[in-house]
Amino acid sequence: MKRLLITGAAGGLGRAMRPRLGKLAEIVRVSDIADLGAAAAHEEVVQCDLGDANAVDRLVEGCDAILHLGGISVEDKFSKILNANLLGLYNLYEAARAHGQPRILFASSNHTVGFYRQDQHIDTTAPMRPDGLYGVSKCFGEALARMYFEKFGQETALVRIGSCMERPSNHRMLSTWMSYDDFESMIDCVFRVPMLGCPIIWGISDNDSRWWDNSAAAFLGWRPKDNAERFRAELDVSLGRQAADSPLSVYQGGMFVRDPIFEDG
Amino acid sequence: MKRLLITGAAGGLGRAMRPRLGKLAEIVRVSDIADLGAAAAHEEVVQCDLGDANAVDRLVEGCDAILHLGGISVEDKFSKILNANLLGLYNLYEAARAHGQPRILFASSNHTVGFYRQDQHIDTTAPMRPDGLYGVSKCFGEALARMYFEKFGQETALVRIGSCMERPSNHRMLSTWMSYDDFESMIDCVFRVPMLGCPIIWGISDNDSRWWDNSAAAFLGWRPKDNAERFRAELDVSLGRQAADSPLSVYQGGMFVRDPIFEDG
Amino acid sequence: MKRLLITGAAGGLGRAMRPRLGKLAEIVRVSDIADLGAAAAHEEVVQCDLGDANAVDRLVEGCDAILHLGGISVEDKFSKILNANLLGLYNLYEAARAHGQPRILFASSNHTVGFYRQDQHIDTTAPMRPDGLYGVSKCFGEALARMYFEKFGQETALVRIGSCMERPSNHRMLSTWMSYDDFESMIDCVFRVPMLGCPIIWGISDNDSRWWDNSAAAFLGWRPKDNAERFRAELDVSLGRQAADSPLSVYQGGMFVRDPIFEDG
Amino acid sequence: MKRLLITGAAGGLGRAMRPRLGKLAEIVRVSDIADLGAAAAHEEVVQCDLGDANAVDRLVEGCDAILHLGGISVEDKFSKILNANLLGLYNLYEAARAHGQPRILFASSNHTVGFYRQDQHIDTTAPMRPDGLYGVSKCFGEALARMYFEKFGQETALVRIGSCMERPSNHRMLSTWMSYDDFESMIDCVFRVPMLGCPIIWGISDNDSRWWDNSAAAFLGWRPKDNAERFRAELDVSLGRQAADSPLSVYQGGMFVRDPIFEDG
Amino acid sequence: MKRLLITGAAGGLGRAMRPRLGKLAEIVRVSDIADLGAAAAHEEVVQCDLGDANAVDRLVEGCDAILHLGGISVEDKFSKILNANLLGLYNLYEAARAHGQPRILFASSNHTVGFYRQDQHIDTTAPMRPDGLYGVSKCFGEALARMYFEKFGQETALVRIGSCMERPSNHRMLSTWMSYDDFESMIDCVFRVPMLGCPIIWGISDNDSRWWDNSAAAFLGWRPKDNAERFRAELDVSLGRQAADSPLSVYQGGMFVRDPIFEDG
Amino acid sequence: MKRLLITGAAGGLGRAMRPRLGKLAEIVRVSDIADLGAAAAHEEVVQCDLGDANAVDRLVEGCDAILHLGGISVEDKFSKILNANLLGLYNLYEAARAHGQPRILFASSNHTVGFYRQDQHIDTTAPMRPDGLYGVSKCFGEALARMYFEKFGQETALVRIGSCMERPSNHRMLSTWMSYDDFESMIDCVFRVPMLGCPIIWGISDNDSRWWDNSAAAFLGWRPKDNAERFRAELDVSLGRQAADSPLSVYQGGMFVRDPIFEDG
Repeated sequence: MKRLLITGAAGGLGRAMRPRLGKLAEIVRVSDIADLGAAAAHEEVVQCDLGDANAVDRLVEGCDAILHLGGISVEDKFSKILNANLLGLYNLYEAARAHGQPRILFASSNHTVGFYRQDQHIDTTAPMRPDGLYGVSKCFGEALARMYFEKFGQETALVRIGSCMERPSNHRMLSTWMSYDDFESMIDCVFRVPMLGCPIIWGISDNDSRWWDNSAAAFLGWRPKDNAERFRAELDVSLGRQAADSPLSVYQGGMFVRDPIFEDG
Repeated sequence: MKRLLITGAAGGLGRAMRPRLGKLAEIVRVSDIADLGAAAAHEEVVQCDLGDANAVDRLVEGCDAILHLGGISVEDKFSKILNANLLGLYNLYEAARAHGQPRILFASSNHTVGFYRQDQHIDTTAPMRPDGLYGVSKCFGEALARMYFEKFGQETALVRIGSCMERPSNHRMLSTWMSYDDFESMIDCVFRVPMLGCPIIWGISDNDSRWWDNSAAAFLGWRPKDNAERFRAELDVSLGRQAADSPLSVYQGGMFVRDPIFEDG
Repeated sequence: MKRLLITGAAGGLGRAMRPRLGKLAEIVRVSDIADLGAAAAHEEVVQCDLGDANAVDRLVEGCDAILHLGGISVEDKFSKILNANLLGLYNLYEAARAHGQPRILFASSNHTVGFYRQDQHIDTTAPMRPDGLYGVSKCFGEALARMYFEKFGQETALVRIGSCMERPSNHRMLSTWMSYDDFESMIDCVFRVPMLGCPIIWGISDNDSRWWDNSAAAFLGWRPKDNAERFRAELDVSLGRQAADSPLSVYQGGMFVRDPIFEDG
Repeated sequence: MKRLLITGAAGGLGRAMRPRLGKLAEIVRVSDIADLGAAAAHEEVVQCDLGDANAVDRLVEGCDAILHLGGISVEDKFSKILNANLLGLYNLYEAARAHGQPRILFASSNHTVGFYRQDQHIDTTAPMRPDGLYGVSKCFGEALARMYFEKFGQETALVRIGSCMERPSNHRMLSTWMSYDDFESMIDCVFRVPMLGCPIIWGISDNDSRWWDNSAAAFLGWRPKDNAERFRAELDVSLGRQAADSPLSVYQGGMFVRDPIFEDG
Repeated sequence: MKRLLITGAAGGLGRAMRPRLGKLAEIVRVSDIADLGAAAAHEEVVQCDLGDANAVDRLVEGCDAILHLGGISVEDKFSKILNANLLGLYNLYEAARAHGQPRILFASSNHTVGFYRQDQHIDTTAPMRPDGLYGVSKCFGEALARMYFEKFGQETALVRIGSCMERPSNHRMLSTWMSYDDFESMIDCVFRVPMLGCPIIWGISDNDSRWWDNSAAAFLGWRPKDNAERFRAELDVSLGRQAADSPLSVYQGGMFVRDPIFEDG
Repeated sequence: MKRLLITGAAGGLGRAMRPRLGKLAEIVRVSDIADLGAAAAHEEVVQCDLGDANAVDRLVEGCDAILHLGGISVEDKFSKILNANLLGLYNLYEAARAHGQPRILFASSNHTVGFYRQDQHIDTTAPMRPDGLYGVSKCFGEALARMYFEKFGQETALVRIGSCMERPSNHRMLSTWMSYDDFESMIDCVFRVPMLGCPIIWGISDNDSRWWDNSAAAFLGWRPKDNAERFRAELDVSLGRQAADSPLSVYQGGMFVRDPIFEDG
C-alpha cells in the first residue's frame, strides 16, 4: 500500500493505532478535527472537519485505503452527530467515489445492537436495535456503505467494535473487549484480502464470554488471539460484583441504553 | 381519536389520503412545506418545514396520532434528504417525546431493500439493502424509530410502502402496488390495535405477484383486499413487454438502483 | 369408527362438541368427573376421575379414538393440576398403550406459549413459554405424547386451542377464537388422515388477526372457514377500547400471565 | 412467442398440454421419441431421441422457448434413465446454449424429495432426498440447469410436478394433484415474466392438503385455482381408507420409495 | 455467597461435587432423602423428601443459591418420578419464591432430547424429544423453571447434563461426557454472572465428538477444558467395537430409548 | 477391517493416501483405470474401468469398506464424466448393494457449491450451486448416495474435498486446503464411527480462512489439526497479490466457474 488514510487519529482508538500503521503503508495520512501533534517520518498530518465536503475530498485524494475511526464516538447532541457521522460519512463516501474507491474500514459499533440482552447470542443478520443517537448514526453508516457497495462497488469492512482499549475497565467488557493487537491483525486482514465485499465484523477478541457470532467473517482469515478473561480477577477486586439490574449486566450496549439524548442548543 | 396529524399532505400520497382521514379523528391537522389549499371543516392546516425543530414541536403538540408521509420521497440531493428525512425525522420524534408520544405511522419504503432481486422472497428480518440516498434515509428512519421505541416506549408502524397510487403504471408495480383502499384500512388497523409495538409492515395489496412476506404483521388484523393483477392486460397493451434486463425487471427497487446521486450545490 | 371416547364432556367445550360427534362414530363414550346427564341413543356415559388408573384403563378399553378434553382447563391449585393433567394424562396414555393405541386428539393450549407478545409471529417450533401451572401441565402433556409417539408409535394431535367458544368475548379473542364448526372439521381431519404422526396444530379459525403459523399442519387438509373479525364491531360497542397495557393487549396468553398460583390446602 | 418446443409430447402429460399450447406461440414444435400423430395447423412434428446430440441440436434450433416434458418419467432401468434424463438433458442444454438460450420449463419431480414424510412441511431449500433412480436423475437435472444459469445465464423454471392429471387417483394425490388448468396458467407465468432466473416451483394446485411451501415462487404471479379436495368423497367411496402404513400414507414420494431398481440387461 | 444448598447430595453426581463446593459459599447445606454421612465443618446436613412441601420450604429458607441435583435420575416408575421430579420441583420453586428467589442450577438432562439421532447437530431451540418418563419429567422441569422466570423473575440455569462422571464408560459417552472439573467451573460461572436469565446449557466437556451447540450460552464465559477423546483407546480395548444398531450408536439418549416404563405397584 | 478398497489410487490424491492405508485394514485393494505399479505386501492391485459394471462388481466383492476417489476429478468432456462419474458411480453402488453394503467414503467436491462467493459462509444444507459438469456430476453422486442410504441403508460419507495436496499452491487454497494428515484422520473417523448415516463433510483443515461450517459433522469426532495459514508468507512471495476480480478471489470454486465445457468428439 502506498498511502493509508486514518481519520479520528486524535481520538482514543486513533492514538493507539497510529503508531502501528507504519507497517501497512509507505505513507500514513493522519487526520482529525483536533490537534494531531507532529508528523512522524512516514506521516502526513491533515486537520479536517468531516462535515466539510471540500476538505474531505482533498483528504481522501491519493489514498489507497481508509481506516475511518473519525466522527463522534459516544452519545452526544444530534447536531454534532449529524455533522460528523451523517453528513461527514456521506462526504467521505462521495470523496472515495471521486478518487478511485479506496477500500474502507468503517468503525461501526456494538451500539447498533445495544438493546439486545446479554443472554442473546446474535450474528450479523440480527435486525438493528440501536441504543441511542450514536448507535442510530452507525446504522445509517452501515446502510450508506452497503448502498455504495451495491451501487458503485465500493468495498467496506463494517467493524462493530466492542471495547477497543488497553484493558477492560468493567465486567461488561469481559465480553466486548478487543485488544489493540487483535484490532491490528484485523486491519491487516481487511486490507490484504483480495475481495472484501461489504461484510459486518464483530470487533472482539477471543474472549471466554461472547455474545456475537463472527463466523460469517471467517473468510477474512482473522483469528483473534487475546482473551479478556485474564483481567477478571483484578476487576473483581477493583470493582466488586456488578449489580444484576445494571444496564452493564443486562444489555449488550451497557450504559448507553440509559443515556439521555442531549438537546440541541 | 381527537386530533390526527398528517405530514406531507401536499404530496401525491398525502393528497390521496387526506379526504379519507375525516373518519379517523375529530380534527385532522394537515401539514406540508408546500401549499395545502383551504382547510375543510374538520381540518387544521399548518405549513411547516420538518427541518425546523421549533415548528415541528408546535406541529405535533396536541396530536393523538401522526401519519408521517412528509419528507423527500424520491432520490434527491443529499442536502435536501438530510434536512427533511434525517434532521426532520429527529425533530418529529423529539416533538413526539415532548408531547405524550402519540402513535406514529412512518412511511418507510421498499427502497430500504431495493437491491434484492425480484426472484428473492424476503421477510422483515432480511438485512437492509438500500438502493440510494433516499433508501438510506429510510433505513435511518427505521433505526431511529426502533431506538425511540426501545428507549422511550414510542410506538411506530414502519410501513415499507411499495407503490401506493391510483393504479400500477408499469409491470413492476404489479408486485408493489397498494391501493388507496388497502392503505386506508391499514391506517385504521395501525391506530386501533391496543398494543402496536414497532413492527415493519410491507405496504402492498393482495397481489398475485409478491416478493414480501407480511405474516409477521398479521397480529394487526390487516387483510388487504385489492389485487394489481386486474391491471395486467391493459399494461401489456399500453407498455408492451418489459425488457428482461431492465432494473424494473430485475431489482425490487426498480429504476432506483440506477439513479445517480445528485451533487450538492 | 366404532367407538370414540370423549373426556371432559361436561366441561364448556365438551358440552359444545358432544352433540356433533355422532357423525364420527357408531358409539360415543362420553366421560367426565362431573355429571353428564342422560345418554343419547348412540352414547355410553361413564363417570371417571382421570387420576384413577384403573378407572381410566376401563374407560379407554374398546375405543378406537380419543378426544381428550378432560382435566383442569384453567389456572388452579397445583394439587388439582397434578392429579388431572399430570397423573391423569399418564394414566390415559398407559391405558391407550394397553388397548391398541387408539389415536388421540389432545387438547393442549395456547398457554404453553402465553408469554410471547402479541406482536410476535411464531410457529410450532418456537420454544415453550408457559404462562402458569396450567400451561406448564400442557407442556408436560405435549412432551409425554411425543415420547409415547417415538417410543411406542402412539399417534396424537397436539391441538393448542386458542379460545373455542360460541363467539369471542373480548378483543384478544379476535386473534385466538376457533369456532365450533372449525373445531369439528379439524377433529374430522385428525381422525381421517391415514398417517397422523404427532403434530402440533394451532386451534384457531381463519381470523384476520393471527399470531400463529399453522403451515406445518397443512398436510391434514384442515382449512378453517370462520373469521372472528365479524364480531369486532359488537365488541367495540360492548367493551370499548382495550387498554394498551392490559395483558389482554400485550401477551398471547392474555390474563393468564397475571394469574396468581393457588397454594395447596 | 414465435416458436415453442414441447418435448415428451406423446406422454401422458404431453398429450394433455399439447392442445393448450396454441395460445402461447405462433408455432408449436411437438416432439417425442414415440409417435405423435398428425400435426395441427400451427404445429411442427419432430420425432427425436434425446440421447442423440445432433438430433437434439436440430430440434432446439429456432425455438424461443422450451417446455421440456421429455425423458423417462417413472422408475426404470438405469440405462434408459441415463440416456434420456442424463445424456438427454445435457444434449438439450448444449443445444440451447448453441441457439440463443431459449427459456426452459423443466419438468422436475416431487421424487427429488420423495423420502420426506407427509407430516413434514418443506420449502425449496430443503436438501434433496430422492426416492429412486428417476428422482436422482431429476436432482441431476436441477443441478445441471442451475449450473447453466450461473455459468451462462440460461434461465429455467424447475417445476417439481406433483401429480398432473385429469383427477387424483388416490388419496395421496389430494396433496400432490395439479390440474391441467393450473399447469397451463403456470406455463403462461413462466414464459411471460421478464426475468425468470432459475426458481424451483412446486407443481400443485391450491389443495387443502399441502406439504410444500411455494412462497419463494410468488414473484411469478402464479396463483393456482383448483383444489383436489372436491375429489375426496369419491375416492373414499371407490378406494376406501388408505392403509396407515402404506408408503402412499407415509412418504411424499408414495410408492416410489418401495420401487425396486431395475437391473440393466 | 453465604449459604449454598445442594440437593441430591447422596447421589453419584452429588457425592462427586460435594467436596468441591466449599470454595463457593461459607456454608453448604447438603441435602438428600438418603443418608448423607457426617457434616464437614462448613456444612449443614438436612435429610429431606422433595415431595414434602413443608420440608422443602424449610430446606430452602436462608439459602442464596441452589444446586438442584435431587430427584430421580434414571428411568423409573411414574409414581416415584411424580413425587420427586414433578411435585418435588414444584415444591422447590414455591419455596424459592417464598424465600427471596435464590438462583437455581437445575440438573436437567440430555434425555429431554434423547430421540434425536447422533448424526443430528442441535442447539437449545430444538423441540423436545424425550426418551422416557424421566426425560418427560425434565421437560416439565424446564417448562416450570421458564414459567417462574417469566412470571416471577426467578433465575435458573437449565443444565442438560450429558454424562457427568469420573470417566466415560462406553463409546457414546465420548460425546456426552462432562468432567467434574468442567462441571465445577460451570457452576462457578452460573453463580457469578450478574444476570443469568433462564438459559439452557449443554453439560458436556470440550469433546472431539459433539452433537450439541452451546454457543447460546457463551455469555456465561464457561469454556470447558476436558476432552473425552483421551479415553477412546482404553474403551476400544475394554469394550471392543460398539454395535452399529445399538441405541448407544444411534440415539443421543442411548439405551434410554429402549427402557421399558415400569408399572406402578 | 479385513479388506479396504481404494479407487482412483493412481490419481494425485490416491497416490498420496495409498501408503497411509495399511494401518486401516489387513488388505488394501488398490484400483484405478491407469497403471498402479507393483503391489505392496498388504495390497491387491486391480485395474478397472468404473464404467464396466461387471468389473466393478468383482472389484467390490469381498471388501468391508470403500474409499472412492475414482472417476474424473476435474472439468472434462461430458462423455468422460458420464462414463466415470455417473455410470461409474451407479455401478459402484449396485456392486455395494450386491455385496453386503460396505461403508463408502465418497470424494465429492467443493465444486458442488462453487458459485457461492467467498464472502458467503455456508453449511451443508445450502442449496447446490455447481460450477461445471464435474461439479454437477458430484451433485448427482451425493443424490445417488442419499437415495441408496434411505432406500437400502447404504452408509456413505459425502466428503466435499477442498484442495487436498502437499501444500496450498495459491491464495484461494488458504481457505480450501486439507492436509494429508487431516484427511487420513478423517478417513479413520469415518470408518470407526458405529453409525455413520450419510453425512456431508467439508474436507478442509483447521484453516484461519474458512467458508464452510462443519459443525453438522462433529458427531464423527474429527478435529483437523493443520492450518494453511503457515503457507501464506511464501505464497505472497512466490505469487504476489491475487487479483481482486479473479475467480480465485471471488468464487468458492475458483477458476472452475470460468472453465469452458469441452465439446464431445
